[in-house]
Amino acid sequence: MIDGQVDLDRMFHALSDRSRRGMIDRLGRGPASVTELAAPLSVALPTVLKHLQVLESSGLVFSEKSGRVRTYHLQQDALAAVERWVEQRKTRWTTAFGRLDQLLADEPETLPE
Amino acid sequence: MIDGQVDLDRMFHALSDRSRRGMIDRLGRGPASVTELAAPLSVALPTVLKHLQVLESSGLVFSEKSGRVRTYHLQQDALAAVERWVEQRKTRWTTAFGRLDQLLADEPETLPE
Repeated sequence: MIDGQVDLDRMFHALSDRSRRGMIDRLGRGPASVTELAAPLSVALPTVLKHLQVLESSGLVFSEKSGRVRTYHLQQDALAAVERWVEQRKTRWTTAFGRLDQLLADEPETLPE
Repeated sequence: MIDGQVDLDRMFHALSDRSRRGMIDRLGRGPASVTELAAPLSVALPTVLKHLQVLESSGLVFSEKSGRVRTYHLQQDALAAVERWVEQRKTRWTTAFGRLDQLLADEPETLPE
């Protein structure tokens, strides 16, 4: 994590793949091993590992190794940064539209010929 | 737009680049020409056009051509799909945690030796 922007790049990139979003959904129901995460996907193990690497480097998930088993966990508040980014824009745009509505309401009711 | 999943792939991909997010912020303040969108970026025009193509194919922005000038606009409710996706997970996870809390609260207060 270098700065907020870099995180968002990685986070949005991590979310831009259906299989990775599926893994996030699976981890939302509890920690899981690579085997469990690979089960619903019809892709080769290296692809699964690559997806997990992308998810982990984005900060959305983390893993821990116990013996020979690596278990993946959803990061707490995983989507908070994405949610904040969206909310900031929504507020900003709503305010901008509100100001536009106000401006239009304040205009004298004369239409160009 | 083939189905919801395809859109989310493209939408998250479109958002995974700082310059493209900057363009979305610019368009949040009102429609803009390619020149206006390129102004704050220190990248070549073909790169700007590629960014705009990615944004347009994601459904986040649209453009219209009047004479020789193409103007870009933010799509209404541009981030609604992303927001909905995040909100669904938040609700689901909160509910899951709530059930876990309830289960723990219902447990008899005996700790293993």
